[in-house]
Amino acid sequence: MSEVEFKKAPDSLQDRLAQVVDLLHRHKLVEDLAHRQEGHQHARVENLVHRQNLAELQRKLDELHPADIAHILEALPLGDRLTVWQLVKAERDGDILLEVSDAVRESLIADMDDHEILAATRDMDADELADLAPELPRDVVHELMDSLDAQDRERVRSALSYEEDQVGALMDFEMVTIREDVSLEVVLRYLRRLKELPGHTDKLFVVDYDGILKGVLPVKRLLVNDPEKLVVEVMASDPVIFHPDEDAHDAAQAFERYDLISAPVVDRTGKLTGRLTIDEMVDLIREESETEVLNMAGLREEEDIFASVWKSLGNRWAWLAVNLITAFVASRVIGMFEGSIEKLVALAALMPIVAGIGGNSGNQTITMIVRAMALDQLGTSNTSRLLRKELAVALINGLVWGGVIGVVAYLLYGSWSLGVVMTGAMTLNLLLAALMGVLIPMTLARVGRDPAMGASVMITAMTDSGGFFIFLGLATLFLL
Amino acid sequence: MSEVEFKKAPDSLQDRLAQVVDLLHRHKLVEDLAHRQEGHQHARVENLVHRQNLAELQRKLDELHPADIAHILEALPLGDRLTVWQLVKAERDGDILLEVSDAVRESLIADMDDHEILAATRDMDADELADLAPELPRDVVHELMDSLDAQDRERVRSALSYEEDQVGALMDFEMVTIREDVSLEVVLRYLRRLKELPGHTDKLFVVDYDGILKGVLPVKRLLVNDPEKLVVEVMASDPVIFHPDEDAHDAAQAFERYDLISAPVVDRTGKLTGRLTIDEMVDLIREESETEVLNMAGLREEEDIFASVWKSLGNRWAWLAVNLITAFVASRVIGMFEGSIEKLVALAALMPIVAGIGGNSGNQTITMIVRAMALDQLGTSNTSRLLRKELAVALINGLVWGGVIGVVAYLLYGSWSLGVVMTGAMTLNLLLAALMGVLIPMTLARVGRDPAMGASVMITAMTDSGGFFIFLGLATLFLL
Repeated sequence: MSEVEFKKAPDSLQDRLAQVVDLLHRHKLVEDLAHRQEGHQHARVENLVHRQNLAELQRKLDELHPADIAHILEALPLGDRLTVWQLVKAERDGDILLEVSDAVRESLIADMDDHEILAATRDMDADELADLAPELPRDVVHELMDSLDAQDRERVRSALSYEEDQVGALMDFEMVTIREDVSLEVVLRYLRRLKELPGHTDKLFVVDYDGILKGVLPVKRLLVNDPEKLVVEVMASDPVIFHPDEDAHDAAQAFERYDLISAPVVDRTGKLTGRLTIDEMVDLIREESETEVLNMAGLREEEDIFASVWKSLGNRWAWLAVNLITAFVASRVIGMFEGSIEKLVALAALMPIVAGIGGNSGNQTITMIVRAMALDQLGTSNTSRLLRKELAVALINGLVWGGVIGVVAYLLYGSWSLGVVMTGAMTLNLLLAALMGVLIPMTLARVGRDPAMGASVMITAMTDSGGFFIFLGLATLFLL
Repeated sequence: MSEVEFKKAPDSLQDRLAQVVDLLHRHKLVEDLAHRQEGHQHARVENLVHRQNLAELQRKLDELHPADIAHILEALPLGDRLTVWQLVKAERDGDILLEVSDAVRESLIADMDDHEILAATRDMDADELADLAPELPRDVVHELMDSLDAQDRERVRSALSYEEDQVGALMDFEMVTIREDVSLEVVLRYLRRLKELPGHTDKLFVVDYDGILKGVLPVKRLLVNDPEKLVVEVMASDPVIFHPDEDAHDAAQAFERYDLISAPVVDRTGKLTGRLTIDEMVDLIREESETEVLNMAGLREEEDIFASVWKSLGNRWAWLAVNLITAFVASRVIGMFEGSIEKLVALAALMPIVAGIGGNSGNQTITMIVRAMALDQLGTSNTSRLLRKELAVALINGLVWGGVIGVVAYLLYGSWSLGVVMTGAMTLNLLLAALMGVLIPMTLARVGRDPAMGASVMITAMTDSGGFFIFLGLATLFLL
């Protein structure tokens, strides 16, 4: 009896990456040596070792799943990435291109000539081609489109006509359709003739002769019911459906809530036009949370960690520029009180405490609210109740922590009144932070913007300028 | 012919929430009126309206999927939440409890007596009971365990013995197992006798008489192959498998990479002990990204947005206290230079610019790196290369933006040397931000801590104290 060997998938991802990096390093070490010893008699031996290393690397890569290779490509700096990319067998190029992130895909496609791109994309489905098309050279896309049959060409065109965040851009066309007036036995025989079913086929789509969706037949029901029964008796006639122009974000939430694996997409006339599958939705959920984190920190988009310095600059400049302006405003607020600071220099040392705690507290509030909005737990209707709660939390934090820091200020500078001003300013700035932490994302959402967009930069701007103004203002009023 | 009515799932979530809130408001309005008019002849009429509103709300709730009710419960403040919870039909309590977030679940269970909890959990599977058990009153858990048969009791115990982030805690036990030496025809007949298949059954598990996993039979293959064939001829003998003590995070990544729907969990002897399904993995992916965002902002855990003020304070105090200390340190750094500020008060106005831009830039770097580490794209091995890149970005940003702000400083205060000090300080602080933005998460990861933990608070602390020190130090050296 042969021992079954199981594929050990998880926990070895970092290991695999390390192996590839190790082989790459050996390869480069040898290359360096070979360069230095050119013409030398050792060169031939080194070249042999060099070739052995590359062969071993190639063997390693051939064993890996396309998704794992994609992962490794994403984790490698550009030079190493292209070395690995060239070693990957040409017939796997397409699968890998579909798996990598946009930023990395761009770098890989830039390294391929038209001929290679055409070869890699030859066997792709219409939905996969549509995914890739925006990043391919224009003439390659034309050539690809010409090679498709009319139905597929229409599908690619239709998929491309939707926005990235619409259901239509994410659906595929690998639907198994059946009629409602046949028996399950007939369905079973039909499936056997197909030889293979598309991935994620947990239900068959029941359509009439015009292609109008009548219901779905879950494979589970097909398996447990008497083969004599008709499809119409067994099918679910009220499946969750989607429309191509719907928001993909909502679709992903529906998949999550109703534990869907696949779902039909129908047009406004009820005609079946495609299907959504859980794998696309999982990718979308992952992407959404990424975008949210990055946007809050003021990063424009997913950044390939080994992107060139120039690309990184481009990704980060916009919000840094905004931050420069807000910092300048904060600086001018302080400038208004230069006279007070000259008289009491302790103010300069204490003012960043007021601003800093306010910024931290405001970031906590805004993070929580952006999160709740992303999960649709919070509309714009609960504002006042939420505001009351956040203000209460801020008031208590302000009195307690402000009190502590007020005592510290007294101990440092021996002035009770300075301590009281400190406590008062902390409390007011925390209240401002709570107010802005609620109002900024709510307002952005109300005017139809992404509530996460630069949230962190904006709240910090408010609590900095506000904190300086409150503290220096109170000090000027009561201490001088 | 009857028109098929389709369930329109997405895009109506906010609508449904709004409808429930509306009905609740009407209900409360009437209740208020009734209170005010007690003893009055109108009271009876109002009571009728009141009852009608509640009945309508109940009807609305009965139509909703448990996941949707869970969502609505999460989005409601405590009082309204409990009103809705009491209207939900008792037999759906269990399903809903399994869907809500931990924080909300706690508030719902606190509102139920032991009898209600027992009724709600009566029909649960072992894995669902294990999910709920930690939050139930101790005596209820005992009673529940006593009502289980030996196998289920053992399963609950086993599931509870794993950490929350281990595969063993997330697996379920609804596996359909078959033998390898039977024909597909026999399998099909066996399935029909089962009457119903567990959710997410995309493959059957092939085991020997000792329960050792020999392979899996994808339902797809069962459907398209000749029924005469034997299971052993058709099954996949190298499926992706998991072990109960593996990290659930890695399992979720494997599900994502290999587009899995279900996968077997086997113990170290190769015996099938449970199964993982994509729905649990999707929840995990969602949770992970949430935890990451919250941790970066210094929030301990998921916070029910309508949690009491006291709970919110508890969730946020720890990092605020840390922030208080770091702010105090920054204040003392400034304190060291009070003499310089007294001589040149412009320093007080300009220093927050240096600190602020550094904080923003450091947050961008740390966010990107925490993100890449969470996605396993970055080990601790790439540190030096990444550091070089981030330092290059910081240098350019420092010279460019620092130059701009240096010119502004000159225009404001008419001192070229002040402008140059400003530019130099900005550049140095951005370099510090880049260094710390890379080193903080890398170091946390190397010592086995969560790299996201309070990342934002820590980087800001570094760039504040560092920025003040660099700027005031340079100014003291060169300007005074």
